[in-house]
Amino acid sequence: MKCSISTQELSRTLAAMRQQSPLVHNITNYVAMNNSANALLALGASPVMAHWKDEMEEMVAIAGALVINIGTLDGQWIEGMIAAGTAAHRKGTPIVLDPVGAGATSHRTETAWRIIRECHPTIIRGNGSEIMALVRADVKSKGVDSSASSHSALDSAKELALKAECVVVISGEVDYITDGHTTHTVEGGHPIMTAVTGMGCTSSSVVGACAAVEPNPMVASTAAMAIMSLAGERAASVARGSGSMQVAFLDELYNLTPETI
Amino acid sequence: MKCSISTQELSRTLAAMRQQSPLVHNITNYVAMNNSANALLALGASPVMAHWKDEMEEMVAIAGALVINIGTLDGQWIEGMIAAGTAAHRKGTPIVLDPVGAGATSHRTETAWRIIRECHPTIIRGNGSEIMALVRADVKSKGVDSSASSHSALDSAKELALKAECVVVISGEVDYITDGHTTHTVEGGHPIMTAVTGMGCTSSSVVGACAAVEPNPMVASTAAMAIMSLAGERAASVARGSGSMQVAFLDELYNLTPETI
Amino acid sequence: MKCSISTQELSRTLAAMRQQSPLVHNITNYVAMNNSANALLALGASPVMAHWKDEMEEMVAIAGALVINIGTLDGQWIEGMIAAGTAAHRKGTPIVLDPVGAGATSHRTETAWRIIRECHPTIIRGNGSEIMALVRADVKSKGVDSSASSHSALDSAKELALKAECVVVISGEVDYITDGHTTHTVEGGHPIMTAVTGMGCTSSSVVGACAAVEPNPMVASTAAMAIMSLAGERAASVARGSGSMQVAFLDELYNLTPETI
Repeated sequence: MKCSISTQELSRTLAAMRQQSPLVHNITNYVAMNNSANALLALGASPVMAHWKDEMEEMVAIAGALVINIGTLDGQWIEGMIAAGTAAHRKGTPIVLDPVGAGATSHRTETAWRIIRECHPTIIRGNGSEIMALVRADVKSKGVDSSASSHSALDSAKELALKAECVVVISGEVDYITDGHTTHTVEGGHPIMTAVTGMGCTSSSVVGACAAVEPNPMVASTAAMAIMSLAGERAASVARGSGSMQVAFLDELYNLTPETI
Repeated sequence: MKCSISTQELSRTLAAMRQQSPLVHNITNYVAMNNSANALLALGASPVMAHWKDEMEEMVAIAGALVINIGTLDGQWIEGMIAAGTAAHRKGTPIVLDPVGAGATSHRTETAWRIIRECHPTIIRGNGSEIMALVRADVKSKGVDSSASSHSALDSAKELALKAECVVVISGEVDYITDGHTTHTVEGGHPIMTAVTGMGCTSSSVVGACAAVEPNPMVASTAAMAIMSLAGERAASVARGSGSMQVAFLDELYNLTPETI
Repeated sequence: MKCSISTQELSRTLAAMRQQSPLVHNITNYVAMNNSANALLALGASPVMAHWKDEMEEMVAIAGALVINIGTLDGQWIEGMIAAGTAAHRKGTPIVLDPVGAGATSHRTETAWRIIRECHPTIIRGNGSEIMALVRADVKSKGVDSSASSHSALDSAKELALKAECVVVISGEVDYITDGHTTHTVEGGHPIMTAVTGMGCTSSSVVGACAAVEPNPMVASTAAMAIMSLAGERAASVARGSGSMQVAFLDELYNLTPETI
């Protein structure tokens, strides 16, 4: 793994996560909830999954970060997302948006933009297709998997970062992290990660956990993608297929320490 | 594993899935979403889980198959299922119905029939109890696990196939695939598969993936059950219990190639 | 593992579960559904996950126990929980309540109490923070993980048991099981269990499965926690991290027999 932040910055972020055990409030999809919760626990963070509009204000009040993921969207959940996101924005709590399937249906693209406008996410993380679809009306996603390389989406990411005034993360063979002016990269991971469902969603939750302990969103996002990448390549070296990859990935996150980075 | 289609037909279906990577739209239950998505990815297909009524038309429009599974039913989801199913039927997209728990409650039996009448599924896949409950009012299911052998449900399956004008798949010790006139069988798998949750639901999703690339629903269904069976018996030979069975099963799907069949 | 019931009582409960294969109806959270279903299958029970208000009466009618878990709460699900809980209470079916996140938001604490008042659970199982929050207005939970030791919650558990006229289980380093007069303990398990999501929720489902076959709720609860503890410590001895812990835990449940206890 190779990334734009120093080993010290990366180690410091991981150490802070293990010491502070931040509460990460996730409003995420049904598919990835279990994976994301397990990844956060493996890293020492404390996940909570909650989406009921009526309890959003109170739950956000005790959280160190909020992660909004539109993977299995419906009308009622959108209300919970907006309630949580506006409460988090008022409180200054970092917000991560994962616009799953933006470009696959117009409702997803529009919902992502509604969340951007009303909740002002600190960080948006998506794959190449999703990031491109948010700024280019002519781009369609094929479901929730990317049909565009991360590099081909870099210009769109910069444009989105400036428009939405946030950090944008594109995950792919190379991960790009940009605020529109500066761009970080993370190289590493392994192609088998794309055969495990919820890997992207999990990385958004890990970005949330890092943002809860590291105030600079460029550093937090880069650290999160570096952690995913490191654990991914270590896990791939022992996995026998996509099933054992998911298991080994959590084991590697669990065994990752500031010292073993 | 022994089945009614040739090794060539089976290999061709698997090769097509890995080449075309069809988008399989699943409206499925909360328990099996993760397993089903992982199984589809392991086979090279591209899963999407989406249930919101408002985006069904657009999502179905880009999908190669639609899988409707009533495992964790409620009133709102039924509307999404009907919207997706009628859109898929209009478009000629293959539809797989998994009538989970039909016979356990009258709402499940009635909802399954409502979907049959309004969406005209191409293939219905269930266990012995579920298939029997759809045609015999006196049969009750005990929850979602089968209390009837697949063989004892074969007459019901033929009746259902003729009534619903579709292919019916009964999974069990022996899997039966019938259009009411011809019947295919798949023998293989392993009893430990019944100790892993969502195996039946996963097989319905795999049936959908095969139907997306193989136009003959008898061949597609038989290929799907043969793939499940092959991966199941290979995984059982290395599993230490039901936990590692789930993991090894995905590994075997991932490593299955037209050559290793 | 060390516990307050005899090896005979424990073996008898497990043997009954494997022989009778009770249907356990779970209304539980999205995160833990897969784990809980797999744990119940591994032990020989038959899980069903169903939450739709309209089918609760019929589903409860065929179940041996009902488990209500408020982990990913919303208004609509509460109606399903109340419908199922009141039907189970009328029928004399044992009910287990898992008040996930009680004390984290007022809606969770109030919903837990509404269920206690209207459904009269047989057993309440929670972590230290949750149990304390149900009887002490000044206690706040940090999300869904406990910030209090199980021992520090013992007085609250006794008070709750007397108030709610039920058995209360606190899980932690030592598990306490109390009806307000007598207290059982279970010592064992392993700290890595807290790094696997849904372990607490799974234990509530296992409590339900034991209550379906063992009429004494003190014995049933103690047996369930002993089973969790035994499988946990055996799994921890082979796990390489939190990912393989989850897998090994299911393997150990699957391989647990009255003879190997």
